[in-house]
Amino acid sequence: MLIMLVGLPSVGKSTFSKNLSKKLSEKNFDNIILGTDLIRESFPVWKEKYEDYIKKMNNYLISEALNEGFTVIIDDTNYYNSKRRDLMHMANSKNKNCISIYLKAPLDVLLTRNIARGAKIPNSVIEDMYSKFDEMGTKYKWDKPDLEINTHRDDINFEEVANKIIELNNIKTKNKELEKDVKKDNYSSNNNKNIDDIDELLKEFKNRVDVETRHVMGEFIKNNKNLSKNTIKELSNYRKNYIKNIKKIVDIEIKEYNSDLDDY
Amino acid sequence: MLIMLVGLPSVGKSTFSKNLSKKLSEKNFDNIILGTDLIRESFPVWKEKYEDYIKKMNNYLISEALNEGFTVIIDDTNYYNSKRRDLMHMANSKNKNCISIYLKAPLDVLLTRNIARGAKIPNSVIEDMYSKFDEMGTKYKWDKPDLEINTHRDDINFEEVANKIIELNNIKTKNKELEKDVKKDNYSSNNNKNIDDIDELLKEFKNRVDVETRHVMGEFIKNNKNLSKNTIKELSNYRKNYIKNIKKIVDIEIKEYNSDLDDY
Ligand SMILES: Nc1ncnc2c1ncn2[C@@H]1O[C@H](COP(=O)(O)OP(=O)(O)O)[C@@H](O)[C@H]1O
Ligand SMILES: Nc1ncnc2c1ncn2[C@@H]1O[C@H](COP(=O)(O)OP(=O)(O)O)[C@@H](O)[C@H]1O
Ligand SMILES: [Mg+2]
Ligand SMILES: [Mg+2]
Repeated sequence: MLIMLVGLPSVGKSTFSKNLSKKLSEKNFDNIILGTDLIRESFPVWKEKYEDYIKKMNNYLISEALNEGFTVIIDDTNYYNSKRRDLMHMANSKNKNCISIYLKAPLDVLLTRNIARGAKIPNSVIEDMYSKFDEMGTKYKWDKPDLEINTHRDDINFEEVANKIIELNNIKTKNKELEKDVKKDNYSSNNNKNIDDIDELLKEFKNRVDVETRHVMGEFIKNNKNLSKNTIKELSNYRKNYIKNIKKIVDIEIKEYNSDLDDY
Repeated sequence: MLIMLVGLPSVGKSTFSKNLSKKLSEKNFDNIILGTDLIRESFPVWKEKYEDYIKKMNNYLISEALNEGFTVIIDDTNYYNSKRRDLMHMANSKNKNCISIYLKAPLDVLLTRNIARGAKIPNSVIEDMYSKFDEMGTKYKWDKPDLEINTHRDDINFEEVANKIIELNNIKTKNKELEKDVKKDNYSSNNNKNIDDIDELLKEFKNRVDVETRHVMGEFIKNNKNLSKNTIKELSNYRKNYIKNIKKIVDIEIKEYNSDLDDY
């Protein structure tokens, strides 16, 4: 599963992550804590131009960890709902559940804690983020957090939190299976939904092959200055054809799948 | 450039890395410190089964950082010469220099420091590693370190170390350019060397496309249980043909390159 933390700087995400991680490990959930800070803080200073690499690497680490079957705790502000949506989609596309945990504390508490640990970020930035933050779930229903935790009150009971998360994971899995059964029963009226499921996977597959091969091609061209323009063009066209043909093959699959349903 | 640290646990690689990193940054070298511990320590406990993911992700982070043009300081023991050779090859294939720095200290110093910071690794392991470590460069010439630094003596002068590294990087670049010129002049007798350079790139390109597309295929199959065996077979064959054809296209490139030389 993907455990997506959401919360402003200094609310206590990293502290929360470490405690949750240990507790989940005790309950035999292989897990890893990831987040952009892991990469960002491997640079000696911050520069805007490092951010592309930071984000790309972070997404890759998360994606591959999910593929390995690890639970991933994402220790990041995840401040924008577009980011939260992208993470949810990533989890869904890998048939994993996404459990969102919103950590909250009053502004004065955030600012005090920020100062106490050296104010790596100016207080003014945190104030600005606080004032502009849309409560999760007010704008979009899918954005409602699974858990809300106040970090300024009493100590957090991580035994309870971990059990709640495991429970939510099981509930979400059961709901998905119920949805699938409903779809099978109502195949005629839900045909479109089935196509959407597969279409989503197809899109991701096609995009992944597209992105990965484009990436490899770009590297190859960058690192081999002697390539003739002709070769580059040929390789490029060959790659594009490959992508097109993958789509054809899987489109055929969709047609066969749907005609099976009709026969039934 | 790739700055490859080599040294036993507790010799001071992480401390050295942070100091060097800051100094290189002051001299305007965008750089990042990477190493398997970055990923390994994101897990709450250690398990042997995490190591595949740890190594794969570490290599990917290093590879992409080099592609971005960052200097990479590899903070790892890099205990095996096969590992050191692989890193050197990675740098070479991206036209980057690899500068190896061997950090040394007497065994008793290592053990004392290990205990002082909590002995995450048992002293017996460090003793074992120390006794079996082949001096760098005794077995293979290419394995000779560019710099050797004793970490148990006086404070290290990082201004000097950074300057020395920058100088070595320039020297290695000049040497490569001289080699290229020599090759151009002696094209008839050095034809095979040119093929090796390109062959190296070709191999890496082919392998990368192979690995990345196999990975995407594997994910797709894993996440889409409804795929018919036929579709899986078709997609798999299509991918294999794609790899074969890329090789053909680049083989043609090599032939043309060498016939150009013959004409000249
Ligand atoms: N539940 C908590 N109660 C009190 N202080 C906390 C709590 N969680 C974190 N802190 C403190 O607040 C500061 C910020 O915590 P941190 O976990 O690094 O926040 P974040 O990762 O959200 O930026 C740290 O000094 C930490 O010790
Ligand atoms: N040059 C040095 N002189 C004295 N002590 C050092 C030196 N470098 C590191 N140490 C200390 O030795 C211990 C191990 O250092 P560290 O850099 O973590 O080693 P490594 O990364 O090689 O395992 C730390 O407690 C550190 O403070
Ligand atoms: Mg944090
Ligand atoms: Mg270290």
